[in-house]
Amino acid sequence: MAVGDIVLGPNQYGKAECRLVKVTRDTARHAIEDLNVTSQLRGDFEACHTEGDNSQVVATDTQKNTVYAFARDGIGSPEEFLLRLGRHFTDEFAWVTGGRWAAEQYGWERIQDGDHSFVRSGRETRTAVVELDGDQATVTAGLEDCTVLKSTGSEFHGFPRDRYTTLQETTDRILATSVTASWRYGSADVDFNALYEGIRDLLLATFAGVHSLALQQTIFEMGKAVLERYDEVAEISLSCPNKHHFLVDLEPFGLDNPGEVFFAADRPYGLIEATVQRAEA
Amino acid sequence: MAVGDIVLGPNQYGKAECRLVKVTRDTARHAIEDLNVTSQLRGDFEACHTEGDNSQVVATDTQKNTVYAFARDGIGSPEEFLLRLGRHFTDEFAWVTGGRWAAEQYGWERIQDGDHSFVRSGRETRTAVVELDGDQATVTAGLEDCTVLKSTGSEFHGFPRDRYTTLQETTDRILATSVTASWRYGSADVDFNALYEGIRDLLLATFAGVHSLALQQTIFEMGKAVLERYDEVAEISLSCPNKHHFLVDLEPFGLDNPGEVFFAADRPYGLIEATVQRAEA
Amino acid sequence: MAVGDIVLGPNQYGKAECRLVKVTRDTARHAIEDLNVTSQLRGDFEACHTEGDNSQVVATDTQKNTVYAFARDGIGSPEEFLLRLGRHFTDEFAWVTGGRWAAEQYGWERIQDGDHSFVRSGRETRTAVVELDGDQATVTAGLEDCTVLKSTGSEFHGFPRDRYTTLQETTDRILATSVTASWRYGSADVDFNALYEGIRDLLLATFAGVHSLALQQTIFEMGKAVLERYDEVAEISLSCPNKHHFLVDLEPFGLDNPGEVFFAADRPYGLIEATVQRAEA
Amino acid sequence: MAVGDIVLGPNQYGKAECRLVKVTRDTARHAIEDLNVTSQLRGDFEACHTEGDNSQVVATDTQKNTVYAFARDGIGSPEEFLLRLGRHFTDEFAWVTGGRWAAEQYGWERIQDGDHSFVRSGRETRTAVVELDGDQATVTAGLEDCTVLKSTGSEFHGFPRDRYTTLQETTDRILATSVTASWRYGSADVDFNALYEGIRDLLLATFAGVHSLALQQTIFEMGKAVLERYDEVAEISLSCPNKHHFLVDLEPFGLDNPGEVFFAADRPYGLIEATVQRAEA
Repeated sequence: MAVGDIVLGPNQYGKAECRLVKVTRDTARHAIEDLNVTSQLRGDFEACHTEGDNSQVVATDTQKNTVYAFARDGIGSPEEFLLRLGRHFTDEFAWVTGGRWAAEQYGWERIQDGDHSFVRSGRETRTAVVELDGDQATVTAGLEDCTVLKSTGSEFHGFPRDRYTTLQETTDRILATSVTASWRYGSADVDFNALYEGIRDLLLATFAGVHSLALQQTIFEMGKAVLERYDEVAEISLSCPNKHHFLVDLEPFGLDNPGEVFFAADRPYGLIEATVQRAEA
Repeated sequence: MAVGDIVLGPNQYGKAECRLVKVTRDTARHAIEDLNVTSQLRGDFEACHTEGDNSQVVATDTQKNTVYAFARDGIGSPEEFLLRLGRHFTDEFAWVTGGRWAAEQYGWERIQDGDHSFVRSGRETRTAVVELDGDQATVTAGLEDCTVLKSTGSEFHGFPRDRYTTLQETTDRILATSVTASWRYGSADVDFNALYEGIRDLLLATFAGVHSLALQQTIFEMGKAVLERYDEVAEISLSCPNKHHFLVDLEPFGLDNPGEVFFAADRPYGLIEATVQRAEA
Repeated sequence: MAVGDIVLGPNQYGKAECRLVKVTRDTARHAIEDLNVTSQLRGDFEACHTEGDNSQVVATDTQKNTVYAFARDGIGSPEEFLLRLGRHFTDEFAWVTGGRWAAEQYGWERIQDGDHSFVRSGRETRTAVVELDGDQATVTAGLEDCTVLKSTGSEFHGFPRDRYTTLQETTDRILATSVTASWRYGSADVDFNALYEGIRDLLLATFAGVHSLALQQTIFEMGKAVLERYDEVAEISLSCPNKHHFLVDLEPFGLDNPGEVFFAADRPYGLIEATVQRAEA
Repeated sequence: MAVGDIVLGPNQYGKAECRLVKVTRDTARHAIEDLNVTSQLRGDFEACHTEGDNSQVVATDTQKNTVYAFARDGIGSPEEFLLRLGRHFTDEFAWVTGGRWAAEQYGWERIQDGDHSFVRSGRETRTAVVELDGDQATVTAGLEDCTVLKSTGSEFHGFPRDRYTTLQETTDRILATSVTASWRYGSADVDFNALYEGIRDLLLATFAGVHSLALQQTIFEMGKAVLERYDEVAEISLSCPNKHHFLVDLEPFGLDNPGEVFFAADRPYGLIEATVQRAEA
């Protein structure tokens, strides 16, 4: 595998961001599924890298075509669609030993409960990743761009103070974040859509319900709640910016500000990241 | 006003994108209003431009402070807030003869009907612009980033063909757009929040209800419906990208595609823009 | 023109953001032109809006095809290309009485002076707009996303103080902005490429050279310099965010900060806009 | 560590995207360094997650303050600055055993070789990441948003064909990508700035110089060239979208198109990713 002493390490390739809209129109009441699909293959592609030999390079264009062709039989759930897609490539091409297939899914609501008119909900983006490595399938589901806020019920104090610490302690602040979460399922044979709905709602309810002493505590409780209720979930990771809302000092203008007027800052922001797991036996 | 023969033309200045979050916490059931406010003054600022004389330049920082200070008394509606803000500047500073005050407002839903926990809805952004010119106030409301789609009920045919025309006619296509609309009120003394809700819902319902022969026709009908139902609205402008959804040719793969699998394209896109007005007497 | 008493007002439509790359390969030393072209037609499109009659609707797809077909003969300059494009539509279709054609152009540099390898420069985006109204052509050129900064040579003081003013005066601050400029040519028959280069360089040099007492003064001087040097320019508009760089207070940490360490803020930002014109006779 | 059987897994937290501008003004000829700095701590933060006990939580605000305070002594290179920052936290707080410190750096050019006026170059963004794990420091440098294009000298053929393959083979196409590269240094004691300049230029020159049979081959050659020339580099990873430029079919318009007119597509795009390493002894 050496070229001199320089070798090819981990690599993958494919077609990214295939924007796919599937309309199911078996009846007058249509359904739509709206996804952004990425397919990446792993396997023996060394000759392409070192010699420009494409005889084992399934074209990224072919991967894209396969995405659209497979959609003809329906999506169902992004996880199932990606599993079907991935297994096709590993079954069809001997040197493709695995890969990574990912999707974002965008939600739509019916306009006035109509049959074929929709408005994009925009509330959060659902995500799914399937990784295949030989016979091993790893299915990860998640969500992103889910912005939540508590207007009270959040404190932050008791932190260590050093030469560079100027932050005041507070027993009442706004807590706001944009939740990015991903959870790994223990099995590839579960009801992905129902689980997604349940887990998303539980994450929101837990965010709302926890009296927060730190965003770390909130996200740990969010993850713990999911693991406690859903045996199907093996572990969950959360990445949450602390979207700072600063109480504006109105005193120079002769006004009080009892938690009413805030400046929502862009950058910098806190960034809190944790994985919550099941203890090993 | 001449510097040689070169003169200052139209000009305005101010503070843009003041991110303002207002929590109303009179009771345990909080309310939040989330805005992005821009203030720009017009008037006699010539000495600043030509000589660097700032004696009439109300600092943009002062404008920002005023935004936050005024929020202490509540927002109510973005239009009322901007009117209050604008009239302050024109009343307070003799040489400020007018200006432009604008806001975006982001919607939030309660999490499980809770008292102080919210999730950003993300469905559309509400917009408002107030322009003052002496005693004259112009109030324009609107929305943007409202993405809608019809999976059927849209045709496009009968267009002229020339040497550069390759487009096929169709009697059934996906029609999708991201609606940007703005409508001018005839008065500054109306119920802005109720009107916004009603007009937005009417725009969506009309998009859904019209059997479309062209996006031009759809947006004209949308504007017409608003003018017919709401006397308060003097005119309405719509700017709508035709977000193309191309039916994927699955024939090379031995598959049919009866309006089921689409590629959602980014660029280029159609762009259809029109104002719908009341005829002058 | 009335539908009841509701009528169609100003309107235009077309294809937006046609991403066009033109390679000129007459010799081994290739040249590339990289544009984003938008075509919008104005004229008599009322029947389409009010009845869905497309017999006068030159399809946006046809407009796109025309863009690419016309590029076969070369671009030359975005202004000339747009003029050629616009005149085609108004000549070809009797009911098309005018329109708006716009382009962004992205700059590329050769990699090590090579013949066919390029790196995108990213420094600024060149813009051009051609508007036709019957026989009348208006050509506007410009630039955007040109971020400039002076680390000294900028003051701001002498502004009025009211109840809401807290800003301190300063005789030495960072002045930074992202210049958006557009200038209208008096004629459609000038050397657009040479003028663009000259005007852009003059704008930058004037920004650098002016000792600034206010961003208003700086942009007025920038516009004035262009009008003084270039008779071809009838007027110029500038829109410049004041990208605030706040001196960080390091005193709590026992450190001074003599204009060395700054926090570059995102929002809010000042926004200064002015047109500089020639006095009418 | 168990809460029931649910435990805290890997976690880190800190302040993200501290926008820092450092002006060095020892002489009249100023220098500027413009960075976006993220600090994240790793260590024992379990009590915060499980109990809301913040006694070991160095506030993200403190981390931000430290970034600005440390900048007072100069940046030098992003890698050195991040090393200094990281070692401060691991030295100062016993329970902080490591972390991740990252920066983007934006390039500026002098305007007409002036002393204190600059224009942002925009060509590429420099990146740096320092990870500390106890005594172990890992320094990774890189770049992103570096868009390059070859107008010839690129082929793609010989790939396998299956039921879903429709792509035509080509011996002359545009090859364009936006290079994201990151390389790990074997030591934390090298001349980071000189290495960055050299490696960036070598990456560009190799992209330009390789006659490409596949983007995989091009990026392998780019990585190989860096490892061959720079002993300081242990390994390098490249992630390169294949930014498709499709030759427009002008035949319907009676025109040929010998590699002259292209449509630059947004999505989907190929995505080619590989690590190039030194063989282990």
